[in-house]
Amino acid sequence: MEESQKKLLARVKRIGGQVAGVERMLNEKRYCVDILNQIAAVRSALDALGVELLTRHLESCVLGHGSDNEHPEAKAMSQQELLAEVKTALSRFL
Amino acid sequence: MEESQKKLLARVKRIGGQVAGVERMLNEKRYCVDILNQIAAVRSALDALGVELLTRHLESCVLGHGSDNEHPEAKAMSQQELLAEVKTALSRFL
Amino acid sequence: MEESQKKLLARVKRIGGQVAGVERMLNEKRYCVDILNQIAAVRSALDALGVELLTRHLESCVLGHGSDNEHPEAKAMSQQELLAEVKTALSRFL
Amino acid sequence: MEESQKKLLARVKRIGGQVAGVERMLNEKRYCVDILNQIAAVRSALDALGVELLTRHLESCVLGHGSDNEHPEAKAMSQQELLAEVKTALSRFL
Repeated sequence: MEESQKKLLARVKRIGGQVAGVERMLNEKRYCVDILNQIAAVRSALDALGVELLTRHLESCVLGHGSDNEHPEAKAMSQQELLAEVKTALSRFL
Repeated sequence: MEESQKKLLARVKRIGGQVAGVERMLNEKRYCVDILNQIAAVRSALDALGVELLTRHLESCVLGHGSDNEHPEAKAMSQQELLAEVKTALSRFL
Repeated sequence: MEESQKKLLARVKRIGGQVAGVERMLNEKRYCVDILNQIAAVRSALDALGVELLTRHLESCVLGHGSDNEHPEAKAMSQQELLAEVKTALSRFL
Repeated sequence: MEESQKKLLARVKRIGGQVAGVERMLNEKRYCVDILNQIAAVRSALDALGVELLTRHLESCVLGHGSDNEHPEAKAMSQQELLAEVKTALSRFL
């Protein structure tokens, strides 16, 4: 498995662990503000994962359009369509 | 278990399932933009959970300061300190 | 004018200046990434203004429900309605 | 002036007007929750401006690296450096 894929998987596993932590804190009736801070931490970790994935997509599929690194799904699209797709994905995050 | 606690737990379990879905999509080498959309959905679910928890905290600990609904941790604080704490928690989210 | 009102007005004036800065940068055809960083700064300043206003609202109208500090518009509502309103406002931000 | 530049300027002018609206609402001591909703609207408009600018940057400077559409500042950079810069800009927004 390539390096960047390993890193993304490690990130998402860590996020899964953080969400399990939030569930545990709720069950233990921990103080609401402490749980909120943990949720804010998960949110930051998710955002960082999103930025990582989007950058990889720009590199391998938008800039790498036509190359071997490209995902099969991107092959059928024009660069203009890929850009429009990135724009929509960004709007969902912001 | 009280109703609002059950709902919060159901929400966090659903978020855990969504994160597991992101991991699966990464493993199956699904198209990056589809994974990004799933991450944006998890983020919205987390935000909704945060809003829910914060409102419950305002109700039971800030407005309910001094009542039986209050979390033990909030008892020792003044309402002024509770407000300052809410302000800090909000800043972490925004 | 009370102190907190002065501070809020100073903040919003500063934000107006920052937005004028973005317009100037666009007109001067400055580098996109520099403009993006300026936009991110305006966004943070807006978020801080929102947190400030929301905390003031919690203090004067939700906790201060029934007191002289309360805004006339809040007088007619119950604390339960005020909380529901705060929840909706939070959802718009998150 | 090119079309996309005109649209960006129109957007930023509209945002300036919205910020002036927030200042007016503060001066008129309007209800806090109404001001908060206006601030949330400015924030959405800023995010949309950010997405627009970033997409233009990807098109003209990252994909268009080496072409005439590229901003002078981007010419000196490699595509790898441009990508790293986009990643940093994204992290500031998310």
